[in-house]
Amino acid sequence: MKHNALLMDYYELSMAQALYFEEKHHQWGIFDYYFRRCPDHGGYAIFAGLETFIKALEELKFQKEDIEFLKQKNFHPEFLNYLKNFTFQGEIYTFKEGSVIFPNEPILTVRAPLIECYLIETLLLLTLNHQSLIASKAARICSQAQEKPILEFGARRAHGKDAALLGTRAAYIGGIQASANTQAEALYKIPATGTMSHAFIQSFASEYDAFLSYAKTYPENTILLVDTYNTLQSGIPNAIAIHENILKPQGKRLKAIRIDSGDLAYLSRSARKILDKHGLTDCKIIVSNSLDEFLIKDLMNQKAAIDGFGVGERLITAKSDPVFGGVYKIVALEDQQNIIPKIKISENPQKTTTPGFKQVWRFYDQDQIAIADLITLRDETIDSTRPYTLFDPHETWKQKTLTHYQVRPMLHKIWQKGALIAPLPSLEETRTHCQNELKTLWQEVRRLENPHGYYVDLSKKLWQLKQNMLQEIAQQQTKAKP
Amino acid sequence: MKHNALLMDYYELSMAQALYFEEKHHQWGIFDYYFRRCPDHGGYAIFAGLETFIKALEELKFQKEDIEFLKQKNFHPEFLNYLKNFTFQGEIYTFKEGSVIFPNEPILTVRAPLIECYLIETLLLLTLNHQSLIASKAARICSQAQEKPILEFGARRAHGKDAALLGTRAAYIGGIQASANTQAEALYKIPATGTMSHAFIQSFASEYDAFLSYAKTYPENTILLVDTYNTLQSGIPNAIAIHENILKPQGKRLKAIRIDSGDLAYLSRSARKILDKHGLTDCKIIVSNSLDEFLIKDLMNQKAAIDGFGVGERLITAKSDPVFGGVYKIVALEDQQNIIPKIKISENPQKTTTPGFKQVWRFYDQDQIAIADLITLRDETIDSTRPYTLFDPHETWKQKTLTHYQVRPMLHKIWQKGALIAPLPSLEETRTHCQNELKTLWQEVRRLENPHGYYVDLSKKLWQLKQNMLQEIAQQQTKAKP
Repeated sequence: MKHNALLMDYYELSMAQALYFEEKHHQWGIFDYYFRRCPDHGGYAIFAGLETFIKALEELKFQKEDIEFLKQKNFHPEFLNYLKNFTFQGEIYTFKEGSVIFPNEPILTVRAPLIECYLIETLLLLTLNHQSLIASKAARICSQAQEKPILEFGARRAHGKDAALLGTRAAYIGGIQASANTQAEALYKIPATGTMSHAFIQSFASEYDAFLSYAKTYPENTILLVDTYNTLQSGIPNAIAIHENILKPQGKRLKAIRIDSGDLAYLSRSARKILDKHGLTDCKIIVSNSLDEFLIKDLMNQKAAIDGFGVGERLITAKSDPVFGGVYKIVALEDQQNIIPKIKISENPQKTTTPGFKQVWRFYDQDQIAIADLITLRDETIDSTRPYTLFDPHETWKQKTLTHYQVRPMLHKIWQKGALIAPLPSLEETRTHCQNELKTLWQEVRRLENPHGYYVDLSKKLWQLKQNMLQEIAQQQTKAKP
Repeated sequence: MKHNALLMDYYELSMAQALYFEEKHHQWGIFDYYFRRCPDHGGYAIFAGLETFIKALEELKFQKEDIEFLKQKNFHPEFLNYLKNFTFQGEIYTFKEGSVIFPNEPILTVRAPLIECYLIETLLLLTLNHQSLIASKAARICSQAQEKPILEFGARRAHGKDAALLGTRAAYIGGIQASANTQAEALYKIPATGTMSHAFIQSFASEYDAFLSYAKTYPENTILLVDTYNTLQSGIPNAIAIHENILKPQGKRLKAIRIDSGDLAYLSRSARKILDKHGLTDCKIIVSNSLDEFLIKDLMNQKAAIDGFGVGERLITAKSDPVFGGVYKIVALEDQQNIIPKIKISENPQKTTTPGFKQVWRFYDQDQIAIADLITLRDETIDSTRPYTLFDPHETWKQKTLTHYQVRPMLHKIWQKGALIAPLPSLEETRTHCQNELKTLWQEVRRLENPHGYYVDLSKKLWQLKQNMLQEIAQQQTKAKP
């Protein structure tokens, strides 16, 4: 798409120019990307979109036609000259893509000249919010399928091509096994899968003729959609006939049937019985039809005979909660090697920012189960040979002293001086990382509804800094009153 | 993006190849695009995305690397050769983009070789569903603002870059007046707008200093964000001081303030009083903060002193109902100049398709208010000098005879033999068309909740065809039973 660099809120540019003329373009700032609430009121989220963001950052360059456009919008030639030479020169500290993440902890920290912090804001938010949304939804959906594969079928209801392609990428990190989106295999090696539509069946004189055509073309991979006319009376008998007449004589097997309507629990169990009776015990049953985590949970509870789930619109749009509210807030300014923490207060205490340049630590018990995350200032370290006392930042009397634990820093520097420090993991590695991360969660945190709230605490030093800053503001406001 | 032509469900390709080897690639079919339910349980929707779809269709070409990829997926060289030379050779009949549309009527009809019908399916659905979703939501939101401008601020929560850009495009058709998305102005001339973030204010020693920097840079267009510290105690007094000290001496005016948090009704009324007291009666008040049609309606009812609304995530994701369920169903096959209607039955009568090659007519009363849409077979005409009797296709005894009416066909042929027949309207014309269309609706149809159901009826001939086909299927099924 043309004018790609201009996919940003206009205020990023108007602020950047104002800062430029304040000679503030050499002043560095620190911004945190974090979110405040898990989608679907779940207990966790998945961080995704990092590689996409980094690649876009590498390519972010104002082209001649962008500069020309901004000139018409009356930006100053001196500032346009700055933009012409712009590349991102800051530093990025981040969770690994595919990590389990929790509200109110910095997932990614940008440390850069202030103008640069602004110029990348929209790109950063839109990429990370979108993919974290879909990866989180995919993890929820996959968590209910008891290891049965989830197939992503949603492109037709996605919010544009990017949403289809990158949504599939994010869903793959979250745990889906394959997708209908052919481009996603071509670009990301996410296995593409698919069979036929009802229209295909209707293009032939009969359902049998349609199955016949398909089986002749794909004898190795015959998957038949059986619900166009009547699943049990017509679709399955025809599928079995195709197996007997066409596949079996060639030494092939009917691979699967797909049911796309009706009562999937009843139909799948009935289909299983009929298939088994005809010796097709290896024939898989795939179902689809506006599925989500709750419907899949119910189907599994009802002992549906299902081997795989096609999930479409409710995954690719995260229909039940389609906004991942990640934000990007200033937490410090830098001045001659000093870091000056910044805080933004709000009438809603949940929205008050946590100031300073920070690190996040994850504590694990001896079974490698995550116990809590701790946010500290960047210069703090944790000596895991000694007990560590965590406390609730709001109800500070709630304390817990950990003795036998492991602890890992979560924010890693990946970018400095205009480039990545080390290559990013492959998508396959990121997916594996995500699946391993999910295993570190208590089942109580993974529960679909009313999950246990995972602890995200502040170190004593950081908590004290925040309190001091809040008190300072309160005193200023008291003074300010007439 | 690479492999653009492969953004399609894999089954389109597997079906296409099967049809190819059945020698069915010369057989033409007719497919309808339609939807079954208005988003947000509203009374209407807006058709958008047509130009985007047509442009993508013009560019749809399998590149060398696509063919290479499909070769690895074991597609047959002969079929790949067909794909290599593929361009869309069919015909497209469609509502004008920006039209008001209703459930169960064909919005767009594709008449083409069957394979081509499949190969464009995903692209068609994803483009039209996405933009119709956002245009419909924008129309709902704008309908509550009593002519005050709606500004689109949602890029950061959009589902990827396409969703941000094309969502803005669709929202513009639906009625927004400007957007924060700079790329949308560069590409589509949708006015880009924006001021500053809280972080910008925090980058300075004080709120006043931040305002000062902004006003010095943009004296012609000073819009100040006043809620970083305290809207009434700090933000507005500082904004007024900037007006007095910086703008007024230059003969300039403070253009607007923006309030992004707190009780927007109370704060805007209080702000209005203070501004007016200081002679700033021309200073506009813009508000934002998770707004949607219901919140805007409430603010207007509470006589909030608001001159413009910034709307973000709830518009760009259509948060309350983020799936536009448009479908694409086969309605006929063609055989030696004969059109053979096709029907797909469903246990849910709402999901049974309406067969045949069709036209949609919209009836207007003498005040140019739309009364009903009528679906007919393509060869039917309506003589508007004679009375016409409409009837409910489900409860056929419900009839209405129209006497003084105007009637217009809604489906226009725009594409044949591989190319557009006539240029498409500009985005500005499409937006104007949409706004004019909205004026043809009864207020009862536009109501946010429990709107009046608009009539979409079938002609007697079409209704009879559908009944005959349903009866034929019922007889076949009776015979089929053991």
